[in-house]
Formats: sequence, C-alpha cells, structure tokens
Amino acid sequence: MKERLILVTNDDGVDSKGIRAAIEVARTFGRVVVVAPETMQSGKSSSITLYDPLFLRHVHEEERLKIYAFSGTPVDCVKMAFDYLLKDEKVDLVISGINHGSNAAINVIYSGTMGAAIEGSFYNCPSVGLSLTSHDPDADFEASIEWGRKIIGDILEHDINLPLCLNVNVPEGRPEEIQGVKLCRQNRGSWREEFFLREDPRGREYFWLTGRFYDDEPDAKDTDEHALADKYVAVVPVQADMTDYSQMKNLAKIMK
Amino acid sequence: MKERLILVTNDDGVDSKGIRAAIEVARTFGRVVVVAPETMQSGKSSSITLYDPLFLRHVHEEERLKIYAFSGTPVDCVKMAFDYLLKDEKVDLVISGINHGSNAAINVIYSGTMGAAIEGSFYNCPSVGLSLTSHDPDADFEASIEWGRKIIGDILEHDINLPLCLNVNVPEGRPEEIQGVKLCRQNRGSWREEFFLREDPRGREYFWLTGRFYDDEPDAKDTDEHALADKYVAVVPVQADMTDYSQMKNLAKIMK
Repeated sequence: MKERLILVTNDDGVDSKGIRAAIEVARTFGRVVVVAPETMQSGKSSSITLYDPLFLRHVHEEERLKIYAFSGTPVDCVKMAFDYLLKDEKVDLVISGINHGSNAAINVIYSGTMGAAIEGSFYNCPSVGLSLTSHDPDADFEASIEWGRKIIGDILEHDINLPLCLNVNVPEGRPEEIQGVKLCRQNRGSWREEFFLREDPRGREYFWLTGRFYDDEPDAKDTDEHALADKYVAVVPVQADMTDYSQMKNLAKIMK
Repeated sequence: MKERLILVTNDDGVDSKGIRAAIEVARTFGRVVVVAPETMQSGKSSSITLYDPLFLRHVHEEERLKIYAFSGTPVDCVKMAFDYLLKDEKVDLVISGINHGSNAAINVIYSGTMGAAIEGSFYNCPSVGLSLTSHDPDADFEASIEWGRKIIGDILEHDINLPLCLNVNVPEGRPEEIQGVKLCRQNRGSWREEFFLREDPRGREYFWLTGRFYDDEPDAKDTDEHALADKYVAVVPVQADMTDYSQMKNLAKIMK
C-alpha cells in the first residue's frame, strides 16, 4: 500500500507548540506536509486573502516531513497546499491544529483552525480540526495527541462518508483524567463582548475586544460543551451547508 | 410606535457605493446607525480581531443617521455596535451590504458581509445580508434597493421566528429584468484556486490567489445559484449550527 500523505495546518502559526503536536499525530499515519501561517491567525474564521500578495517560505525538510510557512490565513494555507504545492498528489487526510484553546460551540464559526479544517474537507479527504481547551502557549498536549491518534485511526480504518470534517476538542488534563470520547452536536450560544477602552501616548483612543460565551442550553446533555465539562473528548461532525431549513415553511408564507 | 433602529454594516468598507445603497434601504424603515469597516474586508468571513487594537471614527451625523468607521472586520463592527455604541438601545434590524459580488452558494462561508449578517442574528433581531452579483465598484444598485426594501418590509410586517438571518442575492440587471423572488437552499459546490506567481523588483516570489467556483449540483432547481441564473432574487435563511447530523449514525458505529 502506498504511504499516506497528510497535510497539517493550524491558526496559531508555524512556530506554535500545538502544530508540533499535530505533526506528531500525523506522522503516525504517513508522510507529512505542513503549510501553516507565518503569524498568529487565531479568530480568522474562513478568511481568504484577496487583496494582498502572499509569500511562501520553505522552513524545514527531513525524511517524510516538509514544512512551509505561508503569509496568509489558515484557509489560504489549505488552498496553497491542495491547489499548488500538492496539486499532482493525492492527499489522504488534513489535520488542523492542535489549537491552543477550545473550538467547541459557536467558536467553530470564528476559528481559523476550523476554517482550515472545513476547507480541507472540500478536497475529497477526511479533515480533522484538533483543539485543546487551554490557551497556554506551553500547554500539555499529551492527552490531545493520544486521543487525536485514536480518533483519526478509527476514521482511517473504517468506511466513512465524504465529505467528513470533525471538530475534535480535548479537555485540559493528563491522559488518565480523560473519561473517553463523545459524539456530540454543536452547543447553542453566542459571545457578548466587552470593549476595553485605552488611550495611546498621543491621546488617541483605541479598543481591545474581549468577550464571554453565553451558553443558551446549559442543561443539554448531547452537546460538545457538556462533554467537555464532563472531561470527555467532544467530537462534532461539521458541514458547510448553512441553510436554515427550519425557517423554510414560515418564510414561504411570508414571502409569497 | 417607537421608531425602529437599524444597524447597517458591510465588508466593502464605509466608502463603498454598496453601503450607500444599504443606507437607502434602511432609512425606509427607521433611523439608522452605520458601523462599517474603514477598509475593504471582502473575504473576511466571521473573523474577529483578537490581537490588534481597534480604532473607532465618527464619520458623519445628520437627522436619523449616524455613521461610524471601525478599523476591524465586519463582525468586529457588529460587536462594537451592539456591545458598545448601542448597548442601551433596542436594535430592530441589521442590514449588511449591499455587497459588490455574489454571496450565493459556498461564498456564504467566506463572505465578510455574511459574517456580519450571521453575527447580527445573535442579537435577537432579524439580520439580512444583501448582495448584488456584480463586482463593479460603480454597479447599478437600483434593483437590489427595490428588492431589499420589499423583502425586509415583508419580514418586519409578519410574525417571524428568531434567530433569523437571510442571505439575499440580487442578480445584475435593471429592476424590470428581475423575475421575482425565490426562497432557496444553499447550492453545494466549492472553489478551486489558481495561484498566480509573480516576482517583485528584488527577485522575491509572491502569489495572488484567484479561483473558480465548481458547482456540485448544476441541475438542482431549489438552490440560490439556480434562482440567480433564472434572474430571480435568491433568499436563503442561514443559521450557525454547523453540526453534520447526517454523519451521526455512521460515526457512532466507528467511534465505539
């Protein structure tokens, strides 16, 4: 059997600790090409760079591993990989992460990690976003590496239906603290922001955006937030059809 | 009855022709506050600005109209409006646009216009993204203003279920060429990119991202792309739960 080819990307940038953890996961399954952002791209969602030139840098090469840094967003990185660098190869899997911080619940729509994972699923291979619920740059990735390997091993060894994109969130803690894995749906809720107003040395005012997540269904048992709170790894399959089918009937009456 | 308050934003920036068209639509229904990006934010998706300070500029004020420019993304603008500028008021409607270019099909996930519209729907009022399928900076917005007014009038005058976010795309052309309005689902398909390689005067290589949309269901009759091709205004209700429920059964077997 031909060795698998795995694309690794992230949103925390090519130098983050999390991407080294993702590379460790990926190397279990085949040879690895990394195309990751030069700079921090957290919160970049599915952004694409339409009005700026993009620069590609060859960072490192060793047996079964090539690393590139790209000046764009996480989605730009996926596009650069599939539509340029690996155009003539068959990519078998995309891993995005391991993200420093949770991408559960509504975070999925803001996350650059998940933007890249969703984009990866458009290229006829399974695509997995991996996140650890710790923002610490020096976080302990051991449990997320272990569980990432297990979940990816399972999908590579079984019959799956494409497109497949998984949003995998691993709770903070040592491997032995994790209770197992749960298949979940995305928890409902949204962020409300607090803008911190400051003044620069020249008297110009500026803001920092900070926020807090409000859980719209704290009692639901089948959501990613609930699984994480119980120290389970939360796995949510994700798709890109944003149509709100539940509105169709009522709107059909209104829009006659 | 208290006059309605309408928030207007976009992704083409505070100086675009499209936002003037959106303000025209909005003023039909009440007083208007505009919080729009200082600069072009096309393709910014649901990006938020976590690692840069944000600057707010008061641009213009007249009766029943205030205009602010904000240095962030479209979603940042919506957050700045609801969580800071209009914190103590009740906003009745969000209009994002009118976008220069289609946001039908998979464009919804990359679009800054739709990022802002989705964000607006998290604040307990209807939120409408309006787009015209022309990228011309000097495009003719007459038909999109007319149909925008009609659709928004309909949802304001009827009982609707919140959250409600609409992705409204208007085909290019004079008002009399438009055949009517169709309630649709999001067309399946994705973009494949072509990277244009150039060299700067110092010999450094760089890329421009350009792409082409591939329609995965050209024969479907109930999609936004199909409605637009037939010269109908396409209306897709949009929601933010990205869970792929269709994968649950198979994954439950695999992930035991």
